[in-house]
Amino acid sequence: MKSRAAVAFEAGKPLEIVEIDVAPPRAGEVLVQITHTGVCHTDAFTLSGDDPEGLFPAVLGHEGAGIVIEVGEGVTSVAPGDHVIPLYTAECGECLFCKSGKTNLCISVRATQGKGVMPDGTTRFSYKGQPIHHYMGCSTFSEYTVVAEVSLAKINPASNPGHVCLLGCGVTTGIGAVHNTAKVQPGDTVAVFGLGGIGLAVIQGARQAKAGRIFAIDTNPEKFELAKAFGATEFLNPKDYDKPIQQVLVEMTGWGIDHTFECIGNVNVMRAALEAAHRGWGQSIVIGVAGAGQEISTRPFQLVTGRSWRGSAFGGVKGRSQLPGMVEDAMRGDIELAPFVTHTMPLEDINTAFDLMHEGKSIRSVIHF
Amino acid sequence: MKSRAAVAFEAGKPLEIVEIDVAPPRAGEVLVQITHTGVCHTDAFTLSGDDPEGLFPAVLGHEGAGIVIEVGEGVTSVAPGDHVIPLYTAECGECLFCKSGKTNLCISVRATQGKGVMPDGTTRFSYKGQPIHHYMGCSTFSEYTVVAEVSLAKINPASNPGHVCLLGCGVTTGIGAVHNTAKVQPGDTVAVFGLGGIGLAVIQGARQAKAGRIFAIDTNPEKFELAKAFGATEFLNPKDYDKPIQQVLVEMTGWGIDHTFECIGNVNVMRAALEAAHRGWGQSIVIGVAGAGQEISTRPFQLVTGRSWRGSAFGGVKGRSQLPGMVEDAMRGDIELAPFVTHTMPLEDINTAFDLMHEGKSIRSVIHF
Repeated sequence: MKSRAAVAFEAGKPLEIVEIDVAPPRAGEVLVQITHTGVCHTDAFTLSGDDPEGLFPAVLGHEGAGIVIEVGEGVTSVAPGDHVIPLYTAECGECLFCKSGKTNLCISVRATQGKGVMPDGTTRFSYKGQPIHHYMGCSTFSEYTVVAEVSLAKINPASNPGHVCLLGCGVTTGIGAVHNTAKVQPGDTVAVFGLGGIGLAVIQGARQAKAGRIFAIDTNPEKFELAKAFGATEFLNPKDYDKPIQQVLVEMTGWGIDHTFECIGNVNVMRAALEAAHRGWGQSIVIGVAGAGQEISTRPFQLVTGRSWRGSAFGGVKGRSQLPGMVEDAMRGDIELAPFVTHTMPLEDINTAFDLMHEGKSIRSVIHF
Repeated sequence: MKSRAAVAFEAGKPLEIVEIDVAPPRAGEVLVQITHTGVCHTDAFTLSGDDPEGLFPAVLGHEGAGIVIEVGEGVTSVAPGDHVIPLYTAECGECLFCKSGKTNLCISVRATQGKGVMPDGTTRFSYKGQPIHHYMGCSTFSEYTVVAEVSLAKINPASNPGHVCLLGCGVTTGIGAVHNTAKVQPGDTVAVFGLGGIGLAVIQGARQAKAGRIFAIDTNPEKFELAKAFGATEFLNPKDYDKPIQQVLVEMTGWGIDHTFECIGNVNVMRAALEAAHRGWGQSIVIGVAGAGQEISTRPFQLVTGRSWRGSAFGGVKGRSQLPGMVEDAMRGDIELAPFVTHTMPLEDINTAFDLMHEGKSIRSVIHF
């Protein structure tokens, strides 16, 4: 079938809106009509060419919501008409990782997903007869996409797809990191480095967890207003200080902060976040994705004196098990999604969404098809 | 009073056995007659001059056992005749850290201890009228030493002081890191980098915890026999492989090792230990003390894919609360101490203990007075 799609033909170039061909779903696969998709920094990172694993041409996008159109052989968990969120972190329920009870990092489709193909090693997308890669197992920048069954969370059809699409990546990543990875407890102190969509979601999660002081840190003070609305209690612009920000935070708190979250992907900020963590028990959670080859560093003394350096992917959330409940939370208002959506636009304007993001003017742009 | 002591007069020089003057204990202090002391790499590190916080002249030593001779004003928890182990990690029970229930890193005497003085800012040691620094709050290389009350664990007087002195540092650090920091569970895999006293104690702790595969890693294969006796099941010399040892370990296990422990103080090995940890949930515990200014590094991807980088000091053990029980464990044979003691010698031969350690010929030398 034909599908309108924003295709990344080449690194560093704008997406092109073209009509691609989408092949039918094979065994274990599902054809989904995407109705809405967010645009995330990870899409921009890959598009920039800085992602060493980026493949071109590709249909990017990984933060979407849609409706099942057709299922391939053997698919039992979803049926045409079901409302779904594609998952870049699959949940097969069968692999070592899914069965461990310790992580959401399912490996069922990991190897092929990283190569931009479906689990059978081929692609369902083509343009003028040339194959186009899939992306993160989702490719939500196409009106019609093919996704593995294990990469689909079935959600309440009464939910607002223009909002819950954000649970496909950013908001879940931030809120999940608070609850599943850090396990923030009432009264704990929290610091959030970087007030984009993920950082703001961390703040929302921290407020849900009844955290005490919530420090919001960004070099762009325009972000503070929204951070405050989500629950942050203190606001710091590192540019306002002569000292390293970790030192400022340690001095403000006595011994540092119980839980710090890096939501940028900057290895220097990752270090600051670790060193701002509380002596004895503080932990720092890396959420941001750093550039290729970049490394984090610190003195091991920071760890020996009780800090932990950890990471979180998709907020530690098991998509098929947990995302439906998070959609219900959003419908009840226990997760607020509307404030993240600063812009909406049709697919044709998707490059504007990238521009707004690069200019720091948007939290999330939501594309509708 | 007069006391025989091995004094570090100058960095990089052998200790000198001299008769020093020891002033009586002041309020909150205790005069202890040391009967036995181990010699630890940390003593050698400070003596070498590489420790930026090393102070000279000083009475080193921090792994001892002894008997209370006299108590200062206000001391209630120990009395003359009590058998004790000096603690370089005090436990006051009153500070933020002691009360947290999350860490053993008491701060009650931390600031002065680091400056080589008693909590009132002065020293009890002198030689020919010149002050001599204390060391790590213990200074067990003097037959008589003065220690803060909060830095003394009272132990069963029927225990063997020539063995339980090792619970003052190395053995407790290793066993404690397994139980308190890593919380190794039955069947978990463990890798130990560096088979000195601490590494061997980690292996012993792992066996106590009923770990599954226990990998022992050292560039000196002569250490493997003792590692096997303590419970290690697999033995690797990184020099035998062309690949980085972390890659070898990941390939041997599929996805890495549940708990890895760095027991050397080498920042490159710390990285290897982290990168050998299991995808999804593996953790790496830094125990070794790195040289001044050295830093650990890795790609943040290692954390985002589920590994945790942590540290442990004194095995997370609260000395006054927990060490008496560990002494009982040793008396029952549940903690084996005898195999660690490869050499014993009188104080006069203490420099030989350092030589044996540098040559890799000893696990622990125990000095008797």
